Amino acid sequence: MSAQIGTRKKDLLTLFDHSTEHIREILRLAAELKAKRCSNQYSKLLDNKTGVLIFEKPSLRTRISFETAIHELGGHVINLASEAVGIGTRESIEDVARNLERIVHLIVYRTFGHNKIESMARSSAIPVINALTDTHHPCQALAFGLTVAEARGDVRQNVLFAGDGNNVCNSIMVICAKLGHNFTFAGPKGYEPNGEIVKRCREIAAQNGGEINITNDLYKAAANAEVIYTDVWTSMGQEEQAQERKAIFADYQVNSALMAAASKDVLVSHCLPALRGEEITSEALDSKNSVAFEEAENRLHVQKAVIVQQFS
Amino acid sequence: MSAQIGTRKKDLLTLFDHSTEHIREILRLAAELKAKRCSNQYSKLLDNKTGVLIFEKPSLRTRISFETAIHELGGHVINLASEAVGIGTRESIEDVARNLERIVHLIVYRTFGHNKIESMARSSAIPVINALTDTHHPCQALAFGLTVAEARGDVRQNVLFAGDGNNVCNSIMVICAKLGHNFTFAGPKGYEPNGEIVKRCREIAAQNGGEINITNDLYKAAANAEVIYTDVWTSMGQEEQAQERKAIFADYQVNSALMAAASKDVLVSHCLPALRGEEITSEALDSKNSVAFEEAENRLHVQKAVIVQQFS
Amino acid sequence: MSAQIGTRKKDLLTLFDHSTEHIREILRLAAELKAKRCSNQYSKLLDNKTGVLIFEKPSLRTRISFETAIHELGGHVINLASEAVGIGTRESIEDVARNLERIVHLIVYRTFGHNKIESMARSSAIPVINALTDTHHPCQALAFGLTVAEARGDVRQNVLFAGDGNNVCNSIMVICAKLGHNFTFAGPKGYEPNGEIVKRCREIAAQNGGEINITNDLYKAAANAEVIYTDVWTSMGQEEQAQERKAIFADYQVNSALMAAASKDVLVSHCLPALRGEEITSEALDSKNSVAFEEAENRLHVQKAVIVQQFS
Repeated sequence: MSAQIGTRKKDLLTLFDHSTEHIREILRLAAELKAKRCSNQYSKLLDNKTGVLIFEKPSLRTRISFETAIHELGGHVINLASEAVGIGTRESIEDVARNLERIVHLIVYRTFGHNKIESMARSSAIPVINALTDTHHPCQALAFGLTVAEARGDVRQNVLFAGDGNNVCNSIMVICAKLGHNFTFAGPKGYEPNGEIVKRCREIAAQNGGEINITNDLYKAAANAEVIYTDVWTSMGQEEQAQERKAIFADYQVNSALMAAASKDVLVSHCLPALRGEEITSEALDSKNSVAFEEAENRLHVQKAVIVQQFS
Repeated sequence: MSAQIGTRKKDLLTLFDHSTEHIREILRLAAELKAKRCSNQYSKLLDNKTGVLIFEKPSLRTRISFETAIHELGGHVINLASEAVGIGTRESIEDVARNLERIVHLIVYRTFGHNKIESMARSSAIPVINALTDTHHPCQALAFGLTVAEARGDVRQNVLFAGDGNNVCNSIMVICAKLGHNFTFAGPKGYEPNGEIVKRCREIAAQNGGEINITNDLYKAAANAEVIYTDVWTSMGQEEQAQERKAIFADYQVNSALMAAASKDVLVSHCLPALRGEEITSEALDSKNSVAFEEAENRLHVQKAVIVQQFS
Repeated sequence: MSAQIGTRKKDLLTLFDHSTEHIREILRLAAELKAKRCSNQYSKLLDNKTGVLIFEKPSLRTRISFETAIHELGGHVINLASEAVGIGTRESIEDVARNLERIVHLIVYRTFGHNKIESMARSSAIPVINALTDTHHPCQALAFGLTVAEARGDVRQNVLFAGDGNNVCNSIMVICAKLGHNFTFAGPKGYEPNGEIVKRCREIAAQNGGEINITNDLYKAAANAEVIYTDVWTSMGQEEQAQERKAIFADYQVNSALMAAASKDVLVSHCLPALRGEEITSEALDSKNSVAFEEAENRLHVQKAVIVQQFS
């Protein structure tokens, strides 16, 4: 799917495509860029270069973290309103890609079907970064990876994902597999992560000394959890299921009781935006154990690192 | 509401929060920045810094003057479409603020209830500038202050605001009180500015040797007016009242007859956009006495001065 | 309509207003800027300058090529959503122009009626560039001129425009007349280009040794065509006529059969977006004879050249 450049890939579509070594390199570089936010050697890297953002779903963190990342690397940003571009209606995705590669230098794309970003990447010679699809959210997973490394160093963690087996869950599972963390999903029956993705993660985890577990029993799963992660129960595009999902997921809330059932000093995180009182309580999200806002900031640093690797 | 930094405040929410001395400093700096638009010492002030604009109401002057101000100070601008951010729906204002402060450096916010911008300012460590709320429009008032100073020097003026006691009226009244200009509001019964704001302005005016008058008699008020200001009769968000308001305000039009009733060489201004033929005639707006377009330009210069003070 | 500055004009509204010599200068400069995309003497030309884009119709190529052009010349871009500006509803076009000229330095405008961009240009002291109106699309024509010059050098071509006598057709016809290329329009009865524009083009063509022909017989017109151009049959704003037009234009498709009927090595181009299978087949658009994507890239270079001439 993605052309290889030395040990790197042209694109970041999913972390499946990237080696453990490469992911560790991104996290190391991100930590360095965070420490030297405005005094690093990359402030002119994107000089005379332009990145376009195309968002087919709402965005706050992703938008500001990518715009700021590109700007702090010296580049210019064009935020294309998806309606005006009309991908798939006014113009095929392949033709959009062939136009973009002629004029700009980087595509950041948030869309629905993962096949759409694969088409975009295949049809353009310039780098494409996945800013969330229905299946993957690799930048969030990298931010999670950096946040856990900052808090716990290079120590295998027991990571518990509570709730819906969605795109964020998938990507957290993939990075855990790649980095050798133990990963447990705990959510209601029928809402587990995709079986094929679980299978691939298990194979990768086995190589790195970690485990992937899928369960419906949240409190049992919490027993030795060192990191608890959650996300909204109703993802973008599923709004009409919101009431139904609220009932189905009610027992999978991240709250003080769950934290008490987990390891001492358990970290709590969330990709945000959070619906306080649904998947997570304010008590949990605003607790001293919460690293959700640190992880939000880390989006900036890991995305800068991804771009630095693509362009240097 | 707003943390203090030396003699300055972190935020610009209303001019109530700022001393006469500080307002005069902003106006002096703005005049200097206008004289040396492209050759001043601040062209790198926002180097590596990013400001976000969030507009929940339409904007032309505010958008282009803030974007240009931030750019000419060396910074990067992100114009966040408010729908995509979903403040108060997708995510609470406090959480939006806590995300923004992690990644960007300045928030320019146009919204409805003034309490929303107070929440934004309280919840983020970075500066917040009010780009209009239902109650205040301090940047417009600063532009007015600069425009009057350019035309009349440091001389107390009799300022007449004709029409609706709205947010622009409030802010013009506050800056007149702070700078010691005499301020008279003349508009229809029931549309006077908020009593509490009038009371606070009277207290401030008294300290600075000025007066605040509220009347329904426009032509009597015009007798010794040296500056006449007006704004649309139907503000953003009141569109369904437009017909009714047109009848109620019909006698409060700024036109040649009103100008003839005022002091010789009376200045006329308007925050724009103007509905020519309603609150102001083209004859008045395009007359040699009109400083409305000069005041529009001065938005750029005063906003640069505000930002320079926040960041230096 | 447009103030003259030396041999140049303040604005680019239509190529009618520009001499053959000036158009050739733009194309020469564009070729130079393309050859030295990131190492030319103009990278700081727009230092401290801001250009606004106002699009009242959708845009991809125009948006990214103008933003990138302005950025690569050192300037800042504001992309104004037309709804928020409310030209003609919230504020008259003349007042918008008078505000813009105070704060920014360049206006790029895509709109419906050509009279609107004429008003914008007349009412502001700063340069205005036409990014497409219902009648003209001069930047596309310049990109076409550069593309043909790259492929064929300074040699008179027989240019065939197949399909709808729309704004793109008009502008291709004008540049052919100005540069001395022979131009033939072939489309269905009732959809020929505007008679007045054809008349003016014939007068200009006569001075430059070229011809303008209007016919309904596509295959006869193709006989000695060296360049075939087409555009969508249903332009922006005509969406409700799409089905009807599909039937009317069915015989005017650019495809392998038409290319076989033309000169050997005929070039094929299109302003994009293309509706593959309607006005052009994928076989034609993706053939080695197609220069459509090259022309898309050339938008960037010719627009940079236009701006360089306006600002240097």
